[in-house]
Amino acid sequence: MDNQIETAGIDIVECVLIDLANEHLAQLKDALVDIHPAELAHILESLPPKERQQVWNLVDEDLHADVLSYLHDEVRLSIIEEMTDDNFLAAAQEMDAEDLAEVLDSLPENVGDAIIEQLEGDHRQRLEMVRSYEDGSAGRLMSNEVISVRNDITIAVVLRYLRLHPELPTHTDALMVVDDENRYLGKLDVANILTAQPETNVIDIMQPDIDKVLAHSSEHDLLIQFDRRDLISVAVVDENDFLLGRITIDDVVDLIREEAQHAMLKSAGLDEEEDLFSPMVPSAKRRGVWLDINLITVFLAAWVIGQFEEVLAKFVALAVLMPVVASMGGIAGSQTLTLTIRGLALDQIAKSNVRWLIFKEVGVGALNGAVWSVVVGLVCYLWFQDIGIALIISFAILINLLAAALSGISIPLILKRMNIDPALSGAVILTTVTDIIGFLSFLGLASLFLL
Amino acid sequence: MDNQIETAGIDIVECVLIDLANEHLAQLKDALVDIHPAELAHILESLPPKERQQVWNLVDEDLHADVLSYLHDEVRLSIIEEMTDDNFLAAAQEMDAEDLAEVLDSLPENVGDAIIEQLEGDHRQRLEMVRSYEDGSAGRLMSNEVISVRNDITIAVVLRYLRLHPELPTHTDALMVVDDENRYLGKLDVANILTAQPETNVIDIMQPDIDKVLAHSSEHDLLIQFDRRDLISVAVVDENDFLLGRITIDDVVDLIREEAQHAMLKSAGLDEEEDLFSPMVPSAKRRGVWLDINLITVFLAAWVIGQFEEVLAKFVALAVLMPVVASMGGIAGSQTLTLTIRGLALDQIAKSNVRWLIFKEVGVGALNGAVWSVVVGLVCYLWFQDIGIALIISFAILINLLAAALSGISIPLILKRMNIDPALSGAVILTTVTDIIGFLSFLGLASLFLL
Repeated sequence: MDNQIETAGIDIVECVLIDLANEHLAQLKDALVDIHPAELAHILESLPPKERQQVWNLVDEDLHADVLSYLHDEVRLSIIEEMTDDNFLAAAQEMDAEDLAEVLDSLPENVGDAIIEQLEGDHRQRLEMVRSYEDGSAGRLMSNEVISVRNDITIAVVLRYLRLHPELPTHTDALMVVDDENRYLGKLDVANILTAQPETNVIDIMQPDIDKVLAHSSEHDLLIQFDRRDLISVAVVDENDFLLGRITIDDVVDLIREEAQHAMLKSAGLDEEEDLFSPMVPSAKRRGVWLDINLITVFLAAWVIGQFEEVLAKFVALAVLMPVVASMGGIAGSQTLTLTIRGLALDQIAKSNVRWLIFKEVGVGALNGAVWSVVVGLVCYLWFQDIGIALIISFAILINLLAAALSGISIPLILKRMNIDPALSGAVILTTVTDIIGFLSFLGLASLFLL
Repeated sequence: MDNQIETAGIDIVECVLIDLANEHLAQLKDALVDIHPAELAHILESLPPKERQQVWNLVDEDLHADVLSYLHDEVRLSIIEEMTDDNFLAAAQEMDAEDLAEVLDSLPENVGDAIIEQLEGDHRQRLEMVRSYEDGSAGRLMSNEVISVRNDITIAVVLRYLRLHPELPTHTDALMVVDDENRYLGKLDVANILTAQPETNVIDIMQPDIDKVLAHSSEHDLLIQFDRRDLISVAVVDENDFLLGRITIDDVVDLIREEAQHAMLKSAGLDEEEDLFSPMVPSAKRRGVWLDINLITVFLAAWVIGQFEEVLAKFVALAVLMPVVASMGGIAGSQTLTLTIRGLALDQIAKSNVRWLIFKEVGVGALNGAVWSVVVGLVCYLWFQDIGIALIISFAILINLLAAALSGISIPLILKRMNIDPALSGAVILTTVTDIIGFLSFLGLASLFLL
């Protein structure tokens, strides 16, 4: 494996699986020593349960804390469940408070409490401080590895002070400047320290009152600040500007990835923490919930069809064609829905531009409705040689594409106002609406004009 | 607006729109001066065409180059189309070569060529170098703003050298260490420069031969390297290790977001560059393509239904219930598909674990198939009081959930092997399969046993 260890991506998982299959365990253990904990986490997440456990047992115990903090909730839980209490406690003691807080959140409460009780005073106090902030707030992510300097000293003093530190915290792109009461005054870029003359005063080259977030602000606001200002790190302060900690880009990158994947996964009833290799029965249970919800909505649509048994029994072509009407509406609606959900996530939709957007989307629906109703009508006429059915399906398609556009934009906006995540239920509600309006308009027009 | 300018997110777009509506243009222009170019880009992307043009006209010309490089392709194009040639040339001259290369890619070729001809020698040469790398490769993203030092000097010399620079490039977390022929030897963390004693030699504290990518390697490999090693910057080298440039985390964060959103947008026939506020007619055209493809697949499904006109004419309950079978398959299949596409994107699926995954997914399909076929059968029996139809729909659901699981995992794998993006066409193919198998199994069983 050694030669290939540097190759990125999937090759490394392949090598691990081959070593396992050939029982080259000693060789694999040696190879794992040189791998970054984040990469180890990726390998573990790419393995079926049995192999995952085998590899975990080969990972050096000193790395357990780091690897655990890189894993997603579900995979982490599957590993912790197999650890002895002592092993897990040892790892917990090595973890940073903010990582441990996240790990404990994903464990059953009694397990978490037992761990907290056994932590030493300092670590425990720090953990409780982090846990006092709501999940999803900046306070939960901050690290206390901060180097702060007073504003009334010179760069020479700063440099002397830094040389006393064996190592700076990772991603130290700036030092935090504070007053004598630890109130955040601004930041001092490391680049500026390097290029400044030693006799310069900190106060003259610091950037005052910039790049800070409140510990209580949301992850979303934090993301926006990092994004808009291309930050590497940000100071976390309380309401009185006291410096509490620091958040760095590596944590934010994870959030960005999760936020961006959120909509896709939620719309299939999944979430970011889902383990691709979780065992069969729990997977089936979790996904069953989503099938359950969809079953209700599809029976609703079936009930609507059931109201038109008379016309369906007379004209079997209607049964053949009704999925066409529903499906065209579903596709057009999901395009609008996807764009609207993304626009909401990117903070692009405001009160004052929403009317323009609705107007535009309904316009797009009308244009495509006009084009596709003619196309579908023509195809149906050629197929069934029945002008009545061709006209009826044309009108139904037009109605359904208009309804789809209006629903695609209004459903997520209404859900958001009701504080329901549009990514979770938007798609289900939308397809229900486009199915029902599709069947209702097509079969309804048919019973009006054909019976 | 001034007081609110610091508030993140959507509020700022709201304020801009209100200022525009009230024609407070001078006030708005003043407020815009203090806004970061990335934030200006966000505001422009959140405005309808007319307002977008108005705000662009208020943006300081010195910021044009920066703002353009932050915009997405489609929005950028809409703005460049309204700029005079002179204005655009002025902005192009201010842009970094890697940003300009990206901008030129989104323009018609003749416009791009005209711009290139008017650039000065150095800038033009650098641009042509960047453009010699394939779109989607690391070489396209690299900047030439690199500080490199020789390995045979002391930290004191490095510091003296740095103090000659008025300003370091942004995100300089490390200096590149090179030999006398500019071959990359390793990196020297800025943190280490700060904490080292001045008389230390660079060679003693540098990290040898680490954190470099080949200019020809793909964006995906670049992402993996940043991700797995929590990097801020990486050296870009050619095959002979000559240092060519540097890629920083801010570019990579954009890639991460785009890669993560890719699957969701593609599955609705959209892409990452789509402008939420693009005008009606081009939007309708673009989305029409997707409706076109879906129309073909849904007519295929309708044709399958058409083969069973006889049984449908006799048992109208079949027409009422057939969407239930298709829809349950579609939902279950799209869960598997979503997880598989994500697993592929995260490099979690290797040759040696794919058999385990297929086995698991089919197992999940069988378990849920067993449960939901009984539930659906029961509901149908209660509704239509017909044991034949209830049994037939139960079997059809079981068959379709198994087919859905198998398709959900195999379709993306096959597409990927054929070098087709699974995110783009996976969902369409999957729904076609689950629709057709759903209708075929339900109506097929019905004609076998009911006729």
